[in-house]
This record gives sequence, C-alpha cells and structure tokens, in this order.
Amino acid sequence: MLGLKHSRRGLKEPMTEKRETYDVTIIGGGPGGYTAALEATGKGMKVALIEKERVGGTCLNRGCIPTQCLLHDVMAYASFMGYEFIEKDRQSIKVSLEKIMERKNQVVDLLVGGTEKTLLGQGVSIFHGEGTFQDPQTIAVEPSKRVIQSKSIVIAVGAFSNPESPFEIDHQSIWDTTDALNMKSLPESIAIIGNEHRVMTFADIFHYLGSRVSIITQEDRVLPDQDREISSRYRKVLKEKNISLLTQTRVTHVDKGGDGGSVELKMETKKGIQSLTVSKVLVPGERQANVKGLNLEKIGLPLKNGSIPVDNQMMTPVRNVYAIGDAIGGKYAAHKAMVDGSGVVRHLSGETIRMNYNLVPICLYTSPEVASIGLTQEEAEQRRQDVEVGYFPFAAGAKPVIFGQAEGIIKVVFEKKYGEVLGVHMIGPQATELIAIASMGMGNELSLDEMKEIIYPHPSFSENFLEAINDSLRMMKR
Amino acid sequence: MLGLKHSRRGLKEPMTEKRETYDVTIIGGGPGGYTAALEATGKGMKVALIEKERVGGTCLNRGCIPTQCLLHDVMAYASFMGYEFIEKDRQSIKVSLEKIMERKNQVVDLLVGGTEKTLLGQGVSIFHGEGTFQDPQTIAVEPSKRVIQSKSIVIAVGAFSNPESPFEIDHQSIWDTTDALNMKSLPESIAIIGNEHRVMTFADIFHYLGSRVSIITQEDRVLPDQDREISSRYRKVLKEKNISLLTQTRVTHVDKGGDGGSVELKMETKKGIQSLTVSKVLVPGERQANVKGLNLEKIGLPLKNGSIPVDNQMMTPVRNVYAIGDAIGGKYAAHKAMVDGSGVVRHLSGETIRMNYNLVPICLYTSPEVASIGLTQEEAEQRRQDVEVGYFPFAAGAKPVIFGQAEGIIKVVFEKKYGEVLGVHMIGPQATELIAIASMGMGNELSLDEMKEIIYPHPSFSENFLEAINDSLRMMKR
Repeated sequence: MLGLKHSRRGLKEPMTEKRETYDVTIIGGGPGGYTAALEATGKGMKVALIEKERVGGTCLNRGCIPTQCLLHDVMAYASFMGYEFIEKDRQSIKVSLEKIMERKNQVVDLLVGGTEKTLLGQGVSIFHGEGTFQDPQTIAVEPSKRVIQSKSIVIAVGAFSNPESPFEIDHQSIWDTTDALNMKSLPESIAIIGNEHRVMTFADIFHYLGSRVSIITQEDRVLPDQDREISSRYRKVLKEKNISLLTQTRVTHVDKGGDGGSVELKMETKKGIQSLTVSKVLVPGERQANVKGLNLEKIGLPLKNGSIPVDNQMMTPVRNVYAIGDAIGGKYAAHKAMVDGSGVVRHLSGETIRMNYNLVPICLYTSPEVASIGLTQEEAEQRRQDVEVGYFPFAAGAKPVIFGQAEGIIKVVFEKKYGEVLGVHMIGPQATELIAIASMGMGNELSLDEMKEIIYPHPSFSENFLEAINDSLRMMKR
Repeated sequence: MLGLKHSRRGLKEPMTEKRETYDVTIIGGGPGGYTAALEATGKGMKVALIEKERVGGTCLNRGCIPTQCLLHDVMAYASFMGYEFIEKDRQSIKVSLEKIMERKNQVVDLLVGGTEKTLLGQGVSIFHGEGTFQDPQTIAVEPSKRVIQSKSIVIAVGAFSNPESPFEIDHQSIWDTTDALNMKSLPESIAIIGNEHRVMTFADIFHYLGSRVSIITQEDRVLPDQDREISSRYRKVLKEKNISLLTQTRVTHVDKGGDGGSVELKMETKKGIQSLTVSKVLVPGERQANVKGLNLEKIGLPLKNGSIPVDNQMMTPVRNVYAIGDAIGGKYAAHKAMVDGSGVVRHLSGETIRMNYNLVPICLYTSPEVASIGLTQEEAEQRRQDVEVGYFPFAAGAKPVIFGQAEGIIKVVFEKKYGEVLGVHMIGPQATELIAIASMGMGNELSLDEMKEIIYPHPSFSENFLEAINDSLRMMKR
C-alpha cells in the first residue's frame, strides 16, 4: 500500500514512513522542556517532546528533588532531636538510610509519573529516544527511527556535570552526585569539592546523617554569588555545625590507597601543601551543555563557552531553532529554565519577550535556608547612587521564635530617592518561600511603600518581610 | 520649686503636678496599639502608650502566640510519629505537657520583653495602669494618678470574651481559653463551643495531645466565613481526625455532676434532645469591646452593637478620639488591628486613608492550614459577572510531595474579562504563608497575567500558587 502511494507521488525527497509534523518540537523533558510543552499546548500548538530517559530532567530525576527529599528527612530528624519538650529515648531513634532512599525513589517516581501524565493529558506527543538534527526543521529519534518535522525546534537538553581535574569519577571512592543520592552506606567522612549550592546541600545531608564533612573550594569565600553579609553568616553556620571549610584550596593529587577504604587528597593552600584523608570524595563537577548526540554540526550551530548561544528571544543563530535552560548557561536553576520555557513559547506565539534574569530567585534549601533576588549590596553600590539597606533579624519575629528558628536576617537593598527595591537577601527560616513575596513585588516594580501597603498575616514568617520593608522606609526617611 | 512656678504663672486651669502633653496617646498596647505607637514615633510624634497589663495584648499574652506555640509543639510530635523513615521506640516518645507549657511561657515572655524594649527604644512613653477619660483630650492613669493630655487619643483596648448562655466559666469544669492555655493536666475528653478559628485551633491542640474532642456549633457548617469548598474539605479533615462535629446544635443545660470529674451537656439538635458527657468544656466565647473603666460616658461616646463606632478615618463621633482593632469590631485578627494602627497614624499625619477590609487575610494555623483573602466564590458570584475559578491540588506539587504534605487545594476566584483576581482560598501546607503572595498581588491590583509574570523558585510551595494562576489563565482563555 505504502509502496503504491510512494510510486504515485513522484517524490522529490525520500519519503520516510513515520514522518510527522508539529508546530514545535522540544528536545528534552526537564523543567524547561515540560514547561514549554505545556505552555505551547495551552496556546493551541501541536507539540512533540523528545526525551531519552524519563521526563523531569536532572532536577526531578537526579537533582533538586531527590536531594531535597533526603534533606527534608535528615532535617526532620535533626529538628526532632532538638525538641526538649518531647521526652524520648535518644538512643532508640535513628534515621534509616534504606528507608529515606526508598522514600526518595518513591517521591521521584510519583512526580515523574505525574509530569508525564500531565503532558499526555494536555495533548503533548512524547517520543522516547534520542533526538538528532537532520536539518533545522527535522529531527530523527533514535532508536525508534521516527522522524519529526517541526516549524520550530526548542533545544532543552540541560547540562551534564564534568568533574574538574584531577578528579575522575570511579563511583567507588570518587562520587558524583548520583552516587551520593544512591549510596548504600554512610561514609564516615567525605570531602565535597566546589562552592555552589549543590555542595552546601550535600554537606548538610551528610552532616545531619553523621558524616564528618569537609568542603574544599578554590574561592576565597563560601557562596560567592550571594551578598557578602549572607555569605559571611553562612560561613559561621558551617563552623557551628563543625563542617570544615577549606577556601583558596586546590586539590592537586588524589591517592586512592590500596584497600579502597580511604582517599588521600594533596592540596595547595595558602599555607602550603596539605593533605586530607577521607572515606569518600564527592565531586558535583561543572555544568556544561548536554549536546552530545544532537548533531549540532549538521545545522551549523557551534557552542560558545560550552553553552548554546541564543539572542534575547531565545533563538540560536540558526533560524527557528531555539534553546533554553541549562543548555544556554547562565544561572543553573530549574525555575530559570521554566521561565525560559514559558518565554520561548510566548515568542513563538508572536509576543516580543523580555527575559529579565536579574529577577531569578536564587535558593539554597539547607538549614538555614538562603534565598536572594536582584542585586547584592556590592552590586547595587557599584551601579547606583544613594543605595541604602534595611534589615529584619528573625530573632525579633513572633513566628520564628514560636518555631524555634529565630536566627538569620532579611536584608533589603534599595535606592533611597524613590524607594526602588534593588535586591532582597535572606538567610533564615522559610527564606526560599518568602523570596516569592519579594519576587511578586520586584517583578511588578512595586516600591517600598507599595510593598508595605498590603496586609501580612500575624503571626507569620511573611510579616518579617514587612518588618524589613518598614526598617527600609525608616532608613529612607532619615 | 514647683509651688513657686505654680504661683508665678497665674493659671487658668488647675495645674496637676504630673500632667504631661503628647501628640498622640494610645490606650492599649496590643498589636493595634503598639503598631500605632511605633508608626507615630517614626513620624516624629510624641507618643504615650497606656497598658494595664503587659504590652502585646490578647494576641501575644493569651491569644494567637501562646496558642500557636502549643500547636507547633504538638504538631511537631505528630509529624515525627508519622515519619516511617525514622526508626523509633514509639512507646518511649511522649509530649511533656509541663515542658510545652514552660516553653510557651518563655516564648511569650521573650516576645513581650522584645516588644516593650522596641517601644521604649523608639521613644514611646509607656504608662502602666488603667486609662480613664477625663475629657476628650485628657486621660488619667490609675492607680499612678498621672494625667496625660494629648492632641489625639487612640482607643486600642481590644475585646474580651463573653461566654454565651448557658455557660458560666468556673475555671474548673468550664474553661475559657486562658484556662486551656494553662492546664496542668490533659482532659480525657473536651467539648469546645463555637465555630471560629480559636475553636478549631484548640480542637487540634487537644486532639494531638490525645483528648477526645467534640465541637458544638449552632451553625450548619464548619468555618462559615470561608469559601464553601474549603469549609467542606475542613469538615472531612475533622472526620479523619475523629473529632466529633455537632452542627446545628445548641447546648441548653450544663450539669456539672457531683464530683467535678465530668460535665453533662443537654443539647437541642435537629434530631431532638441529646446529651454528651465530657471531662471539660471550653467556651472561647464571643468577643466584645473591652471598654470597662475607660469612662466613655464622660466624653459622650456610646457603643454600637458592643463596639466603638468609627468613620472611615477611624475617628469616633468624638472629635480627635479614634478607635482601632478589636474594639471597633469587624474581623477579629491581630493583623487587622495592626493595619488599623498604621492607618490611624497616617490619618493623624495628614493623609486621607482608605481602609480596605476586603483584603485582610484570614488564617487558621491548624493541620491543614487554611488561609483566604478577598471574596469567596459565592460572594463573587453574587456581586460580579463572569466569575470563574482556577485550582491547584497540592498533590501535584513537588515540594508538598517531598514534605509529605500533599493534601489540599489552592483556589483562585477571578473575573474572566480582565483576569481580575477577586479571592484566593487555600487549605493545605503553608497556606498561612502563601496567602501573603496573593495579598501582595491583590493589594496592588495585579492581574492574573502579572502574577504569572514573576519568577517563583522551584521546588517551592510558592510555585503552587503560580500553578493555580496558570490554571486560572487556562480557564480564562477557554
């Protein structure tokens, strides 16, 4: 039958049996990809989504979600052990590593299933396999051999982690984050390499489980992307937890010893060469665009500094080929990818979009939490005149005191003349939730006065944000 | 010396030695009063604050704060007992009633001390004693006999609880909320009379401590001020907890028996007369303006329906005498009083204020939490055309699933034409915090589109609000 049709048409190009045509095809089903897919079906587009593993991407399958699940469980244990108002036989209470791993897997499975169901329910066609460009409007899916034609293609392949020299992940002594997320037994001690949010999150997990933790970074301070004051408070917290922080330190040699039981690290420090022996080393690695197999050469799309270059409408130098999320670099955060995903679809539906990465909240879910949006005080002072700051210490808040979580601050960076809020930085309870209030205000260009005008519940953590606004207004009027 | 000065002046009015003059005098140091005091000093006014007990009012001394402290502790216990990933000898783990009471008292003392210190630090003159009007600009403080003259006076005396018939609080078998907050032993069973937020909060405290709880209300549904759907979900939650809910039921007789060990209640129900025997009865009572001792007759200021009448600038019929907070009735909430306190000071400093009680968040801190702002669906449909609703079920959210708190919904009530948000109603995790995001948006008249535009962290509870907005936008465009 098909053969007959074939011959009748007098084809100019070879016909492929399973060729299908879509308005938009998204390669990669992580937060950026699935957000784009749902937005696009919402706008009536015919959408294909290609995913080589399970939908959900790094974030859901081996990133924030499983990590936070473990973090929740170990912190639930730690909080409980601190409650003096509950009588307990402390020796009889233990976190079961097996059960927290099991729960983590269940949570991930549930959310992956839910995401896939939502995508299918909204009419997204999911293709399982690896997408490879044949031309800028054609993707072949391996190994199914299906070929997809699409008016637009969105590359949302995310990033992979590349261990920095001299480390080589052997999954035995030298772990990547996936190894840590699936460990069968707790290492007595662990060194974690780097300085960003994943490093701090794993440091907390291992610390609360009972490992001796060292963080090794070449930078001169912890959380270098955060406001200096927040970073300095975080350093103190690490010290209180007895987590060892080695700054301006570079590992030069890794010696795995003979028995596999420990690893010796040789390090260059300001004080000269030092060594550290640990049970395991965790190397979260550096994130690089995950373009392997895409065949970008075929469409003439070279990487730039390890990322896919795009313009302010998310378009690559190749017409109608777009890229979003971790694949284009910048701030590696799931919600940044989601914003890209939403933005690219709005562009495709004819809007001129305006991506504003200054207002991406940056969140660290450890204890205490850290969250920030906008400019740090240093950045603000470099760019603007008349910069002032307002504070609220959680110690003065009713809800933090009730919850026994009365440490940390909210810091508001603003411009004195009109009360324009330039940045909000928090370390303390609920920071990663409270930042959304600041985001709602700053994203809609509300002034200090307008943020004060609304009604915050009492008692609540959110009213502490109001207190920081009030303090800012007092500083402004002085 | 004073005598000499006295005679030199040739006084027109009798001079009192301790007479002092202020820009504004506030009677009552609760949330409304202390907020007004701090706002007023912030604007450079000379402020007196009269308080007959400790600053902090009902909320801080015997209301939300101590109640939430107990609630936090019993829920911390209940959550922990539900964590299967923690191995424990369940029998050995017990809440210590003595210790949670002790912690509650410490929290209250700390916050009262902090509030007083802040007031004094900002230059507020605190007078301890009972204020009595001598004329509309003169207050005598008993028993210190000090006399305060003031350009304006703000009555912020709050409300007291009046037990409804046939109950008489004996502090033995029939408790008020203060008795419950200071109990020495846990009643085996307790009946709680009424239907508002305090009732539900105490129901949770007693339930999680292990009492058998009955709620008796004359209303036909629980939380009658909430959206009907939220109320109906809350009823199911009570059922799951085995908290008995008797609606359309009126207690007609109270029989305290002979030994003081139990109370028998005779009740009129739809099914006829029934009886219930319990260890204790808790009667939160009805709130009425706490004007005793103020001597309002002296200045010709009569109550209206048990509250002090005010106009939209918070002024009573007596010139330069204002009233705020629970004393003027309306929604009994600390943050409503705080908004009044802030508003009245802005009026005094020359602004024309516009009190909008439609956007007071209403919060219930139980498990699950309930929070709402703006119109319920029923109210919206009565007043507006083209009302539509959007939903997000917490079961579909990453953070709720991670936290094992994936029950409940966020419901957005909006007007379809322009996407104006009319009300937001939540039952589920973090509802009392998330409502502040809705408050920031609605208070600044942001549309659905504008609320969607901003960046919410992933994963977070706050992004669930975004999902409810997204669902609303889908409904709007259909």
